[in-house]
Amino acid sequence: MQTYRDTFENEDSTPAGAAVPQSKKRWILNAFNMSCAGHMAPGLWKHADDRSARYHDIDNWTEVSKLLERGKFNGMFIADVLGPYDVFGKNFNGALRTGAQFGIDDPLLVISACAAVTKNLAFGVTASVSYEAPYSLARRFSTLDHLTKGRIAFNVVTGFLTSAAKNFGFEQQTEHDERYQRAEEYVTVLYKLWESSWRTDAVVLDRERDLYADPTRVRKINHCGKYYKTEGPNLVEPSPQGSPLIYQAGTSTAGVEFAGKHAEAVFVTGPTPKKVRAHVDNLRAAASKAGRDPQSIKLLVKLLVIVAATDGEAQKKESELRSYASNEGAAVLFGGWLGEDLSVYDEDKDLREVDIPAIKNMVKGYAALYSDEKRPWNRKTFTDHFKLEGLGPTVVGSPTTVADAMQRWVDEADVDGFNLSYALYPGTFVDIVELLVPELQRRGVHWKDYPTRSDGQGIYAREGIYGLGQEKFRDDHPGARYKWEAGCEPPPLD
Amino acid sequence: MQTYRDTFENEDSTPAGAAVPQSKKRWILNAFNMSCAGHMAPGLWKHADDRSARYHDIDNWTEVSKLLERGKFNGMFIADVLGPYDVFGKNFNGALRTGAQFGIDDPLLVISACAAVTKNLAFGVTASVSYEAPYSLARRFSTLDHLTKGRIAFNVVTGFLTSAAKNFGFEQQTEHDERYQRAEEYVTVLYKLWESSWRTDAVVLDRERDLYADPTRVRKINHCGKYYKTEGPNLVEPSPQGSPLIYQAGTSTAGVEFAGKHAEAVFVTGPTPKKVRAHVDNLRAAASKAGRDPQSIKLLVKLLVIVAATDGEAQKKESELRSYASNEGAAVLFGGWLGEDLSVYDEDKDLREVDIPAIKNMVKGYAALYSDEKRPWNRKTFTDHFKLEGLGPTVVGSPTTVADAMQRWVDEADVDGFNLSYALYPGTFVDIVELLVPELQRRGVHWKDYPTRSDGQGIYAREGIYGLGQEKFRDDHPGARYKWEAGCEPPPLD
Repeated sequence: MQTYRDTFENEDSTPAGAAVPQSKKRWILNAFNMSCAGHMAPGLWKHADDRSARYHDIDNWTEVSKLLERGKFNGMFIADVLGPYDVFGKNFNGALRTGAQFGIDDPLLVISACAAVTKNLAFGVTASVSYEAPYSLARRFSTLDHLTKGRIAFNVVTGFLTSAAKNFGFEQQTEHDERYQRAEEYVTVLYKLWESSWRTDAVVLDRERDLYADPTRVRKINHCGKYYKTEGPNLVEPSPQGSPLIYQAGTSTAGVEFAGKHAEAVFVTGPTPKKVRAHVDNLRAAASKAGRDPQSIKLLVKLLVIVAATDGEAQKKESELRSYASNEGAAVLFGGWLGEDLSVYDEDKDLREVDIPAIKNMVKGYAALYSDEKRPWNRKTFTDHFKLEGLGPTVVGSPTTVADAMQRWVDEADVDGFNLSYALYPGTFVDIVELLVPELQRRGVHWKDYPTRSDGQGIYAREGIYGLGQEKFRDDHPGARYKWEAGCEPPPLD
Repeated sequence: MQTYRDTFENEDSTPAGAAVPQSKKRWILNAFNMSCAGHMAPGLWKHADDRSARYHDIDNWTEVSKLLERGKFNGMFIADVLGPYDVFGKNFNGALRTGAQFGIDDPLLVISACAAVTKNLAFGVTASVSYEAPYSLARRFSTLDHLTKGRIAFNVVTGFLTSAAKNFGFEQQTEHDERYQRAEEYVTVLYKLWESSWRTDAVVLDRERDLYADPTRVRKINHCGKYYKTEGPNLVEPSPQGSPLIYQAGTSTAGVEFAGKHAEAVFVTGPTPKKVRAHVDNLRAAASKAGRDPQSIKLLVKLLVIVAATDGEAQKKESELRSYASNEGAAVLFGGWLGEDLSVYDEDKDLREVDIPAIKNMVKGYAALYSDEKRPWNRKTFTDHFKLEGLGPTVVGSPTTVADAMQRWVDEADVDGFNLSYALYPGTFVDIVELLVPELQRRGVHWKDYPTRSDGQGIYAREGIYGLGQEKFRDDHPGARYKWEAGCEPPPLD
């Protein structure tokens, strides 16, 4: 994951930055979650009102799902990794001491319980394409698309932790660009299984003809590529969306190319709208290059919102929460994301003076951004700055203040919505639903209610970002060529 | 899967068969289910009262879970395969036409929804150890053990369909005995991850010491064996049972040896108590040989129960249900189980006269059993016989008749309980809960209610078969040597 390095290393690619006209488009709101304690804010598990360490409890998930649906969120998005963060100190002891994303439950397994108590909320789940056969993964998402009635999204990741590779028998991760070449073939196999192995009307349930499914409408895919081989068809009958809604978050050159081609929504992050705008423009350009409408990639920027009735109350709340957050936990997470071990420096060593360009430039950049170049930027102060939000931006204030700041993000960074992390669980989301959402609704940038499907079902995940009727891939998506529609001949598989 | 072949091929190993004394022990009752339409009774989806084709709907699962808990079932057990049945006719067209176990949703994904609406019902899920890394599978079951609060069981299978192997990039299945050698190493890796990588009290949540988990109580397993390599620790914190309750169903020599060593409950099947007794004795002997109490392997025999107020009504119900069942669907399933394609014979060819010894001997055996040697035993009449129950035995009658028959199974076959399949979904289970369960309770062979844990939680899956307090592996189980208990030194890993 090179998000944070690239933020400052790609300085030159920042565009002129002319703000787009202030828009009143509806924003996409996702809640950012993970099946662990504290997620982006390690240490908050100690707060008396925090329930994030109860992530093993189904009711902790179903209650938040209902809360988010009450707030008309598009979806809950669940991050995932497949190993502990063990760069800081070169072991996972810090992750254990602080609970920083370790342990982590499997995020796919709680979805059916959440789907059972909601109707319109979508569920985005991260899954790595590096360590599981595409046939199994296709089946898991098809099953969840059925169980949620079309409300599932799949965040495609290749992984970034060496600890994960070692859990799967490898000495290290596959080289970065090759990971994306593998991912490219992997999703192609998925599209074939999801879109092309069963015609959408293959299951007929025809009692008169004693016919469950029509064999002329189902075929093997016989995929035999460089990295993957599978016969098919998909083990699961055609599901509401065919393919789940595709999320992605890559920021390297290969990652942007992949996202530009395959992602329907992309998670972005960065310290300021201007910094993020550069990345957004790159992603939309990559989409154009792949033959897609650049506006059809929906960009969601990560944001921590601390909202209260007044700015003063919100600032007080932020200070109180930050006092529970763990500097060590933050350093553990940064270690994994940056690939650099901050434990090798003394606590008071100014990080702008270290030998590692990635760290030096990043910290210099932040110091300049915050007009705070004179204070020390050592490990303590650096982690102080970001231990509640995981390097992402934070907005603190009254509903008006927060909504104004979000509007600036939409206008200046050209994003389509937000991936809202939490500091206190679920308190941060409770505040957003109770205080911020009404303000956003008043401004016309957030749904007063979900749109209504004519069949009475909840909206599909894909309809949530593209509008009613867009149940399957848009025609300009590379997966669309594999669609085997009712009444049609099967499309070619190569 | 060699169950049906072995039933008759191993004729000589049948013991003298002296019935054990009539016992009043409590029976274990599992409901046998699968995430597909019709399961053992393809064709029944056409029945107006059948809801098995609604297997994509969460409420179809949660309602049956609540029903089974009302009937004080031990658990719901969900079968699985990883490819279509394509032996019959050498393609999967028959499976599609009849819906015979194709499509199939992923069975792990609906469990959290079912767990959310029940308290004591256990969930047994089949998962193959042939096509997934042990690290992922360990994580999935640990997660479900948390989400269900100790109510998960894992049915270890190696798979029996070549179609599955082809979906995972192999030309054919790994040779049978090697599959079990791999499975042996695989479960050893699982035990290390589940029992030995986190001390049971590693997660301390100590606010005063600002300590989420104690790093001295967590370790890598660094497994590097013949087939698998993984560093660990488990990604998931210690779960209520440590390891899920282990189910198995192997019947080959290698399968029996594996079950005797690892299984805590085994699914068995066969046409008569005497036939099954031979297999039961083999399994208990294998357990003894592995140093375990032979009575600690709980044997559950598959049984279809059609129960009604009177014998006459039950027989009428059976005839009506059988009229919906599919001969082709039965032949499709038998093709997968037997590995033989019955489509090569004319419909009226007597199967006792074919060249394949496996088929010839099996059909001869059934003909003798049913004292029906003079009628034709062709494909039509053979599938007529078993199309509602998938080659397993069936008991039809009033509650008294059925309970008497089940008592004979317990006494003569030395089984500990039943794996009850359905013909009509969920009608078969409704009848059992409403009509049969009260009779079993009256006789003292079935719980009037679940036992109560002192902490107010529902009973764990393992406690359901061994009694309260047996939360983790018994000491004579091979996984027990890896237990890293609170206050203890870590056990050796080799």
